[in-house]
This record gives sequence, C-alpha cells and structure tokens, in this order.
Amino acid sequence: MKRIGIMTSGGDAPGMNAAVRAVTRKAEHEGLEAYGINYGYAGLLAGDIFKMDSRSADDIINRGGTILYSARFPEFAEEPVQLKGIEQLKKFGIDALVVIGGDGSYHGALRLTEHGFNAIGLPGTIDNDIPFTDFTIGFDSALQTATDAIDKLRDTARSHERTFVVEVMGRNAGDIAMWAGVAGAAEDVIIPEKDFKIEDVAAKLKSARARGQKHGIIVLAEGVMSAAEFAKKLEPFGDFQLRATTLGHVQRGGSPTAFDRVLATRMGVYAVDLLMEGKGGLAIGIQNNKLEYHNMLDLFDSKHQPDMDLYKVAKDLAF
Amino acid sequence: MKRIGIMTSGGDAPGMNAAVRAVTRKAEHEGLEAYGINYGYAGLLAGDIFKMDSRSADDIINRGGTILYSARFPEFAEEPVQLKGIEQLKKFGIDALVVIGGDGSYHGALRLTEHGFNAIGLPGTIDNDIPFTDFTIGFDSALQTATDAIDKLRDTARSHERTFVVEVMGRNAGDIAMWAGVAGAAEDVIIPEKDFKIEDVAAKLKSARARGQKHGIIVLAEGVMSAAEFAKKLEPFGDFQLRATTLGHVQRGGSPTAFDRVLATRMGVYAVDLLMEGKGGLAIGIQNNKLEYHNMLDLFDSKHQPDMDLYKVAKDLAF
Amino acid sequence: MKRIGIMTSGGDAPGMNAAVRAVTRKAEHEGLEAYGINYGYAGLLAGDIFKMDSRSADDIINRGGTILYSARFPEFAEEPVQLKGIEQLKKFGIDALVVIGGDGSYHGALRLTEHGFNAIGLPGTIDNDIPFTDFTIGFDSALQTATDAIDKLRDTARSHERTFVVEVMGRNAGDIAMWAGVAGAAEDVIIPEKDFKIEDVAAKLKSARARGQKHGIIVLAEGVMSAAEFAKKLEPFGDFQLRATTLGHVQRGGSPTAFDRVLATRMGVYAVDLLMEGKGGLAIGIQNNKLEYHNMLDLFDSKHQPDMDLYKVAKDLAF
Amino acid sequence: MKRIGIMTSGGDAPGMNAAVRAVTRKAEHEGLEAYGINYGYAGLLAGDIFKMDSRSADDIINRGGTILYSARFPEFAEEPVQLKGIEQLKKFGIDALVVIGGDGSYHGALRLTEHGFNAIGLPGTIDNDIPFTDFTIGFDSALQTATDAIDKLRDTARSHERTFVVEVMGRNAGDIAMWAGVAGAAEDVIIPEKDFKIEDVAAKLKSARARGQKHGIIVLAEGVMSAAEFAKKLEPFGDFQLRATTLGHVQRGGSPTAFDRVLATRMGVYAVDLLMEGKGGLAIGIQNNKLEYHNMLDLFDSKHQPDMDLYKVAKDLAF
Repeated sequence: MKRIGIMTSGGDAPGMNAAVRAVTRKAEHEGLEAYGINYGYAGLLAGDIFKMDSRSADDIINRGGTILYSARFPEFAEEPVQLKGIEQLKKFGIDALVVIGGDGSYHGALRLTEHGFNAIGLPGTIDNDIPFTDFTIGFDSALQTATDAIDKLRDTARSHERTFVVEVMGRNAGDIAMWAGVAGAAEDVIIPEKDFKIEDVAAKLKSARARGQKHGIIVLAEGVMSAAEFAKKLEPFGDFQLRATTLGHVQRGGSPTAFDRVLATRMGVYAVDLLMEGKGGLAIGIQNNKLEYHNMLDLFDSKHQPDMDLYKVAKDLAF
Repeated sequence: MKRIGIMTSGGDAPGMNAAVRAVTRKAEHEGLEAYGINYGYAGLLAGDIFKMDSRSADDIINRGGTILYSARFPEFAEEPVQLKGIEQLKKFGIDALVVIGGDGSYHGALRLTEHGFNAIGLPGTIDNDIPFTDFTIGFDSALQTATDAIDKLRDTARSHERTFVVEVMGRNAGDIAMWAGVAGAAEDVIIPEKDFKIEDVAAKLKSARARGQKHGIIVLAEGVMSAAEFAKKLEPFGDFQLRATTLGHVQRGGSPTAFDRVLATRMGVYAVDLLMEGKGGLAIGIQNNKLEYHNMLDLFDSKHQPDMDLYKVAKDLAF
Repeated sequence: MKRIGIMTSGGDAPGMNAAVRAVTRKAEHEGLEAYGINYGYAGLLAGDIFKMDSRSADDIINRGGTILYSARFPEFAEEPVQLKGIEQLKKFGIDALVVIGGDGSYHGALRLTEHGFNAIGLPGTIDNDIPFTDFTIGFDSALQTATDAIDKLRDTARSHERTFVVEVMGRNAGDIAMWAGVAGAAEDVIIPEKDFKIEDVAAKLKSARARGQKHGIIVLAEGVMSAAEFAKKLEPFGDFQLRATTLGHVQRGGSPTAFDRVLATRMGVYAVDLLMEGKGGLAIGIQNNKLEYHNMLDLFDSKHQPDMDLYKVAKDLAF
Repeated sequence: MKRIGIMTSGGDAPGMNAAVRAVTRKAEHEGLEAYGINYGYAGLLAGDIFKMDSRSADDIINRGGTILYSARFPEFAEEPVQLKGIEQLKKFGIDALVVIGGDGSYHGALRLTEHGFNAIGLPGTIDNDIPFTDFTIGFDSALQTATDAIDKLRDTARSHERTFVVEVMGRNAGDIAMWAGVAGAAEDVIIPEKDFKIEDVAAKLKSARARGQKHGIIVLAEGVMSAAEFAKKLEPFGDFQLRATTLGHVQRGGSPTAFDRVLATRMGVYAVDLLMEGKGGLAIGIQNNKLEYHNMLDLFDSKHQPDMDLYKVAKDLAF
C-alpha cells in the first residue's frame, strides 16, 4: 500500500478535520501518501482528488466543518457508479480509503471493499446514532454547544420565570437531548426512544414550582416532535410561561472539543493501522474506552442504543 | 439621601447584574444603603424589596440574566398605582431609584420623578434601540453570541456549500444584525431601517459564487421578517441551497462580555452620582465614548438611529 | 439511613458542584436529606455543617470551584480527630458521607469507614491521577481550558514563527499534557512517566521546519520541570525562537464541560445508591465507560497509569 | 492608484486579519488590487509579496494572529533600506501601503510617506497604548481573554479563600489591567500610570475580609512589576494566602471579539478611502466613537493616556 484516500461524507461534524489530519500525518509517518477527496462520493466520481501534505493538514485540527467538503450522492448505491469510483481511485494510485461520516457513508465503503478495494469507516456525526461505538466524532462538541445554549437560556428563564422547551438535534437518537439535559440540569428530558406523557411533564414543572423554582428547561430531541408542537401540547396543563426554541444548525459547527479532537485523532491513526494490515469493510468505534472495529455488515444489522442508565439519572434528578 | 432602590425591568440583558452590583457597591462606598426590588414595577407594588449588601452583589458581575428578576406590569401606567409604588418605597426608607431596562421601563421612572421621587434609568437591553446612547447594556454580549453562532454556521455552510439565512434579534432595530453581519463577514445584511430588493440579495450570492465562494451567510434582523419567510422569498432566484435558522433566546443570556460589564459598571456608578446630586427623570447613555444623561422626556421624542456608516461598510465588503 | 453528608476536599476542580448537586437531588429523590459540610475535614471538625435543599443545589451545575469550599487539614490523619469528626456527624444526625476530592481525601474517608461510619469517595481533581478510574471529575474541563490556550498560543507562534513551551498542570501525572498535546496538535509532548532526550525534541522541531512549518508548540507536564527550565535546556540545540509559558491556575477553574457535568452527576447518584446499600470505604470510578467501585485500600496500593497508546499517537503524529 | 499593499508589523493582535480582509475586499470593491506583504518590513525588503484575492481574504475574519506574519526589522530605520523598500513596492506596481501594527511600525510608514510613497497606519496591538485612538485593534479581545481568566481564577480563589495576584499584559500601559480589573470585579488594580502603596492594597484585602469575603483578586499590569515580585511585597502585610499568576501570551491570540472585528473592518475600509484621496503619513484612530486620522508626526509627540475616570470607578467599587 502506497496511497490512502480520505473523504468526508454525510452531515459535517466537529472533529472531522482532526480525523483528516490524523490520517494524513499517520500516513506520512508510515511512509505513505495521503490523498484528499473533495465532496465525498460525488467528488470521488468526479475525480476531485488531490495530494494532501503536512501543509494541507496543518491548522485544521481546531476547525469545525470539513475542509474536504461533503455532498449527497445517492447514485453511489449503483454498482456501475461504484466501479467507476474505484477506477478513479486507481487512476490516482490510491490503494485504500478512509471514509468519515454517518452510517449512510458506510454503505459505499462496504461496497468498495466488496469490489476488492479496502475501505474503512470512521463514525463522524453529531447524532451519536451509530452502532458499536459509544461516541461518534462530533457528539461531544455538539453536546457542549447545546449545553452552553441551555446555560444561556436558563439565565432568561430564571429572570422571567419562564419555561423553555429546547429542541436539540440528534435525528432519531436521543443522545444529545439526554446528555445535554443532564449537563444542563433540565427539569425534563424527552427522547424518541422512550414514550412520555405530557401530564408527567406538567407534573414535574408543578412540583418544581412547589419547591420554589418557578422557571424550567425541558430538553426535547428533534426526533420526537418540534419544540413548537411540544409547547402547544403542554400549554393546556398549566401556566408555565412557555417559550419554544430550536437550537438548530449551530450544533453542527464550531471548533471541536478536546475530547472530539483526541477521539478523531485516535480513530484516524487506527484506520491507517488497519488498512496497512490489509483490512477493509470495517467500521471503527470506541467501546468501553477502547478502539474497536466491526464488520460493516454487522453494523447494518444493529441499532444504536442510548444509555438508559443515564436516562434514569436524568429522570431521578429532575423529579 | 440614605437609601437607593434598584430594579430591573423589561427583557433581561447580560450586564444587568453588573449594573446592580455597581449601584450597590457605589452606594456602600458613599455611605448609603442599597435596596433591591424584585420583579420590576410589579415587585415594587408588592413590596418585594430587600436590603442588598456586598454579599448579594458578590459573584454576580459575570452572570447573565438578572438576580432581581423581571416582569411585565402595564398597570404601572396608571397614576394611583404609581403613587402606591412611591408609598412602598417610602415604607422601606428608600429615597431614590435606579431602573435598568428598555425604554418601556423609563416611562415608570419618569412618572415617579414627576411625583417628586427621583428615578434614573440605565439602558438595559440587547436591542441597542434606545436613543441618546451609542451602546445599551447587553448589546455587545448579544452581538458576541450572534457572531459566535454565525462562525459556527459558516462551518456547515462552507462544508456543504449552503446559504444560511440567520435571523437575529433586535426588535425593530437592525443594530445586532448590522454589527453581527460585519463581524461574521456576512454576504448580506438586511435591517428594518433600510429597504432591500430580494433580487439584489440574489445578485450578491451569485457574484460570490462567480468568485468561487459557493456558500453564504445572510444576516436578517427579526424586525424585517422571519428567516423562513425570507428564505421562501429568495428561493425562486437561484439554487442557493438555502437554510433558515433563528438564533432565538440564546442571544439574551450568557455571561456578559468585558465590554458590557465595564459599561454597566460605569453607568451604575454614574447613576448614584447623579442621584446624590438630587437629579432625577434622567436617562443615562454613553455617547462618543463619554457618559451622558438626558431628560427622559426628550428621549421619548427621539428615535434610535443605527450607524449608517457601518451599514455602508457591511454593503461595501459584501459586494 | 436518613441523612447524607457531602464535602469537597483537596484542590478544587470543575464539576465538583455538579457532584454536590447530584448527591443532594438524588438524596431528596430517595426521601433522604443531604447536609453540606464546608471546608472539607476542617469544617467537619468545626461543625460547619448545614442542611442542603433544592435551593442550595440549584444553579450550581455550571459553576466552577466548589460551593462547599475546600481546605487542607492534615490533622485528620490522627485517630482522635477522626473520632471527633464522627461525633460531629452524629450530632447532625448524619449517617453516611460522600467526599469529593483527590486521593488524599480518600484516606480520611477510609478511616471513617474503619471506625464504622460509611464514607464513599468521588475522584475530584483535574490531574486525572487517581487509580481505578479512566477519568476524574474536572479532567475534561482542565483539558479543554489547556487546549483553548494552546489554540491561542499557536496564533502567535505561527504569526511570529516562534516555539512555545507550554507548561500544563497535572502534578506527577502526564494526562493533561498528553491529551492537550494531541488535541492541540503539539509538535512534542513531554510527560513525567516517560524519559525524553532534549536532542529528540530539537530534532522534531528541525524536521517540522524542514517541512516548512516554522513555529512549534511543545506541551510540557509540570511534573517534569518548569517551562523556563525546559526552554533553557532546549535553547542550545537550535534557533527555535523559544518562549516559555505556564498556563497556571486558570486550568483549575471555569464552568465544567458537559462531559464533566455528566460524569460528576452519574458518580454522585451512584454514591448515594451505594451508601443506601450500606456500603462504605469505596472509591468510585468510571472504567471502560462503566461506573465501578473499588475498595480504597486497593486503591492506595495502586498507581494511576496514563494511556500509553495515546502517548504513542501523540508521538507518531508529531514526527 | 491601482494597487494597495498591506502588511502587519510588531506584535500580533486579534483583529489584524479582519483588517487585512477589509483592505483587500474594499480595494476590490473600488476596482483596485490588494497585495499582501509577508513578515512586515523584513518581507517588504525581501520582496515577499503576493497578490491577495477574495480567496486569501476569506475565512480569516475570525482567526487570531496574522496570516501575513510579522517580524522585527530594526534595519528599516535606515534611509537606504527605506528606499530599497519603495523600490520593491514599485516592482510590484504597488502605489500605496497600509501598515497594521504598534507605533513602532508607524515610523516606517512615515518615512515611506516622506519619501513620496503614501502609507497609512492602523493601530494593531492588544496594549491599547497608541495615542489618538480610544481603542486599538486587539485590545477588546485581549481584555476578554484576561477577564475570562480572572473569572476562572476567582472560582479557585473563592473555593480555597486565596488571593490571586494576576499579571496581565499591556507593556507600559495599564489599560488591560484597568478594564479587566473592573470587568473581573477585582479587589484592586495596579497600573504603571499611578503609584500605589502596598499598605493600601493590604488594607483593601483586610476590609474585604472584614465584610466576609475571604478571597481576593488583584489585577496587576506587567508594566509595574511581575506578579511574583508583587506577591512577595504584599506577603508581610497579612495572611492573604497569596498566589501569583501570569496570564502570558494567551492574551495575544484567539479569535477576535465581534467588537474588534468591526473596529478593524471599519479602519481597514477607512484607510483605503484615505489612500484613494491621495493621503499618506496618517495614523487612523477611533475617538469618541468616530473614525479619525492624525498626522503621524503629531502622534509621536503624544502619549496615550488611560481613562482615569475608569480608574476611579475601579477604586471606588473595590473599597
């Protein structure tokens, strides 16, 4: 193996650049060359490929987004397109590929491997919704952004004795909501993995008021419903001075936390190690604080499970 | 004069607590006592009043919101209610009052002064929409929060080559939008004080694309329309990959910037100085980098004007 | 069990307040009462003890330092003092104790348990130097502060093509240095657990220069030597435009990261659970992403080991 | 005029890049070309000059340091060197120059103008020590960094009831110390422009203790003495649990605040306007919230004065 390609795919996440840097530097350290592929699979097909060097990988570890851009490219589901992609890679002398992205991006990587071209996936998404990894690259940064926002909202909530329904990202996963709820000392946390009764939410707010705390924060995962809908449902149950707010895309950007940078760096290094061993079709994860890899096929059969112990903690403390 | 009352009124703003602290410490320094009034005019009527001391004013300079709470109380427009308020103040031996809030709060302060009870207003609002002051307490912090958010959104905008329409606060004023637009290097800035043509916005985005920059940020003041409406209007004019996002209440909270803390502190000290001179019915401002005061009556006849030179700068650079 | 005491001891760390809150709320949730003990073991002896309620635990999750204060009290090593401490606890009807602090604080907790009074320890220190836990409460926050500082220093290093020797905290442990070194993309990382040759450091800087990067960041753990000493040692080996900087006590303060808040909260809840089961003399940790407890005696026989895989990553990428 | 050169000189400061961007974009907007000169006057002599375009000025507004690098070059005090510099500028077809830096950099700019080559200076330094401007580019960002650090140090100071002597930057000017002291609610502020008695500092700390506040923060400008020296002087006067800390170079880096970005942008635009009017030898400043220019000769005869009203505020509140 002489040349490793690297691309980012799917929604951007803080830490992707740290992973790109790690692959590039590790490759150089091993006497290999790293090639960047812009715009994910779309750029692969288009041959938007360039030689990375220390320079291109400098000063990116602390930058949000992805310097390799990202783009949707559903066409890559088709075999001829995949083969064309391999052709492009070979044209540049690239022998193996690292793809950073959500599980959507993994399908392409698996197909390439099945066609004999080793590709390895890194879990890059703020949603933390990928199986076989406790943390995805970007989750901690998004969590921090959401928590900072909740801290700010609480200032106003307390000053005006209002209740904020704060909608956070996570697609169908409740991880950001659950963690940010605990970190933000939310009065309640609503996630898609658990049913809720609106009466129970109202009861919590009322009990907080009875204790003398007249404001509240409810953290709502976007996978449940919108903040506005939720507020509308809750309104008839009491005079909570509700305000609905949606944190939105800010959760996707910003300088990655130290945690995400370290995670992304370790995963990037590990991917190069595995490719050098001739492996492919693998998804890298961190489980029980150790780097692991799993066959992508197994991953597609699995489902990410949020940490229900933490959910219980959130509920216990927000009684 | 022996006792000074202090309250916050209207929407909360970062720096209000710094002003509360400054009034309290300055009063103590001058051998006076400071009394906190909770919940603005509502708390005044209800007699929710307590003696402040160094302790209550400690550790609050860096906290968002207001430790004195805030509440709406339109009833204070009625004279009997105002007289009842003065009665309450006298019951606690309070001789003069500092009110921190938007220009709504100033009306009450003026009425009190007209009834012979000196009150002075400090401009506390993120909107920067109060006449006779270049900066209101809270504006710089809200601007910083908006700018940080725009930095984060640009990460995603660039990575995915999208255009974000970012709706910022400011009520009817365009100051936050204009400053955050310049600080965030926005491709365009839309404020209520200036008409705009949607075609011109589209033209700017297209010219940026022609130069090779395929993403964009448009900062929109909430006083114009919502981000969603704006995006809908813009959509027919080109393939800009539009996303609408509303920063929302986070702009109101958070630890005040150093600038806001210093401004609030200086204004709080100045208010005590003026009250000690027997003055009342005044609104404090900073103009041309100097503390000034104006008669509140003059203020109600005036209108805040955004800095049109800065608007021109925003437009010139975003060609 | 009816009443749980809680104290902080040793150096303060971000997240201690989150743990205090968690113990208090969890206790309330279980129908128990929580009592705060100010100034660690010193306050215990002095009877500086008060009933915590939701109020005292409100609004503290995001605050640095410890609302319960901390103080040194070496006298607690003596048995009569320990027995006096138990007397005080019983006077307040307290049945069990949670101590948050470094391993110094654990000795007192173990003695209390040996005298029949159950006490459980939570690892609260930025240094990450406690055995049987992958992360201590405060480590992630200190790491983030150090990383932010390194990002800032790099701006100047690059602009002026200088090399900064950045001394970070950690006492005898290299964890902050190692993690911050990876997160800050340092050109080299020096920790007390590994010998280094100054010639190798110089060689790395020279090789970076040869590649075109003329500035550098060397992250140095305080347990090795001071930044000034290190710079002096390095100076003869090349024209690196060295600057020595010591981040200092800022690493100990500040709002805890979301990660630390969640960790502290989970540990606090777990401590109450264990005390309710009648357990004592235990140190709580998180290992392999799971909450664990260990006998304090075992802990004193062990030594924290930094993650040498991560050290290798740091070295590989900084070639 | 067809081509404007731009360089940064002296110590780097946050906001320099925003000024570089503003000059570049404004030049483009006016149909001119902008040329970047690396490494200040050293690069000018060496001909390290390149055409800037929208691309090079993109994504830099929020980055600390200077993308144009900076370097010392005392040789530029000699006339032959100056003439050689003009030769280089003419070789690239550059007709006028913007220099961003401290007043050291202004001397070179004045000489160029005297030789018939128009040059204009922007005040870029965190120290706020340039005459004829209320704020320099970078001051607000450094102030914010210092204030954030003080907030963090206060966490530990309070938790352990210690007194921190915090040394901040500013060379011979006390502005950062004074503003950060007010913003950080320091118990005392020591600046080079005002003598102090160590007994008075001790008295303040003692009076704070008498009021029940047992910790303290003293902000010390580096122009007075080092934190360690100061602590040593203060130690004999009471048991203050002193700790000395030096914030150091972090104050020079980091993403500029919104305030600094706007200031730098406005100044950069203004510089191009003035050069287009054929002016040179001018130093731009902001005074009384308005952009102004002054002859550099006048500036060299003047001395920056800190705002003594603010100093009084600091002292009054820290009684």
